[in-house]
Amino acid sequence: MKASIEFFFDPISPFSYLATTRIDELASRHGRNVIWRPTLVGVTVTKVMGLKPVPETPLKSTYFARDAQRLAQIFGVPLRRHGLKNVNSLAACRAFLWVQERDDASARRLVRHLSARLWVDGIDITPRETVVAEAASLGIEVGDLSSEEVKHKLAAAVDYAIRKNVFGVPFFVADDEPFWGCDRMWMLDYWLATGRLPSFDDLLCRLFQD
Amino acid sequence: MKASIEFFFDPISPFSYLATTRIDELASRHGRNVIWRPTLVGVTVTKVMGLKPVPETPLKSTYFARDAQRLAQIFGVPLRRHGLKNVNSLAACRAFLWVQERDDASARRLVRHLSARLWVDGIDITPRETVVAEAASLGIEVGDLSSEEVKHKLAAAVDYAIRKNVFGVPFFVADDEPFWGCDRMWMLDYWLATGRLPSFDDLLCRLFQD
Repeated sequence: MKASIEFFFDPISPFSYLATTRIDELASRHGRNVIWRPTLVGVTVTKVMGLKPVPETPLKSTYFARDAQRLAQIFGVPLRRHGLKNVNSLAACRAFLWVQERDDASARRLVRHLSARLWVDGIDITPRETVVAEAASLGIEVGDLSSEEVKHKLAAAVDYAIRKNVFGVPFFVADDEPFWGCDRMWMLDYWLATGRLPSFDDLLCRLFQD
Repeated sequence: MKASIEFFFDPISPFSYLATTRIDELASRHGRNVIWRPTLVGVTVTKVMGLKPVPETPLKSTYFARDAQRLAQIFGVPLRRHGLKNVNSLAACRAFLWVQERDDASARRLVRHLSARLWVDGIDITPRETVVAEAASLGIEVGDLSSEEVKHKLAAAVDYAIRKNVFGVPFFVADDEPFWGCDRMWMLDYWLATGRLPSFDDLLCRLFQD
């Protein structure tokens, strides 16, 4: 039995959305299970790291917006820039945790769905009612999203991510090897296939065969 | 005649050091010239973007230090973490610009050398005297590093980089397509070979042939 991979996500990030579309398939090709772990990357960036969110950071925001589109093209999925302000994923992450305890596959399906609703359809997933309704459209029940229990669960999940040095999403950990970014899924794939890192020439030569 | 690639560097960054070891060879395989452009990424990060430098940013600093080692392994070159404080690359970048006007190949050689002195040998390249002496060891003269002319030249180079949205190094621009990071050199390579982006499956399948 091979060790599971950890996948840290936050529906608020377009890069996390992209990762949700591929991670399970990638891992299963290598006979690995994936443990999906929510985090609130906004909390980590502003409170732990003392930075501004990327969308409010000059220069970087422009590049990241363009790069998200480019990576969506690579991933072969749609992605549209939403003009929403102050989106947060508290309700989405709490819903994930409540469902995960009961049915892991449904919990993943819910996160894939909510991420795509935000990043493809431009639906604001901040309100609890929206999360409840979106889940219901999949036939998934999410429990009481304002219960103390689910609040504590999410706080613990965020603490865990911070202890694991998760400063951005998506973030993967395989065999204690950390990988940040959906643009590193090739490196994760290579790691899972070989247990090592590629050489620069290997990588370029292989891409270069086109 | 194919369009040149722009390569933005700053010897202060380990990732920029890694890029200096490969960019010319990569570009020349595609019949492209590289225009090397210095910038002061510390200025951009703190003054334009309003962030802390990565080494002072919790969580991220840990990952980036580890990732630099991992990428050095991929690049097949040594990299050692120096314990130096307050290193800056003002003198190195000014020296580059003075030499570049006279002999572009020597200017590149100087930057490769200074980057490696910092990131392999742990030599502080901040003092002007050090830059002068290191250049002399290569038989390269660097002019007066405190002249108004070279100061203005570097200020203009930094302004140019900021106008080009260069928020980190290394940063490459090919045919108006921007690529940030030495871990995106595979994407640059693919772009130069094909004029397009790879698909996710192409990328993984190719890596996966191992």
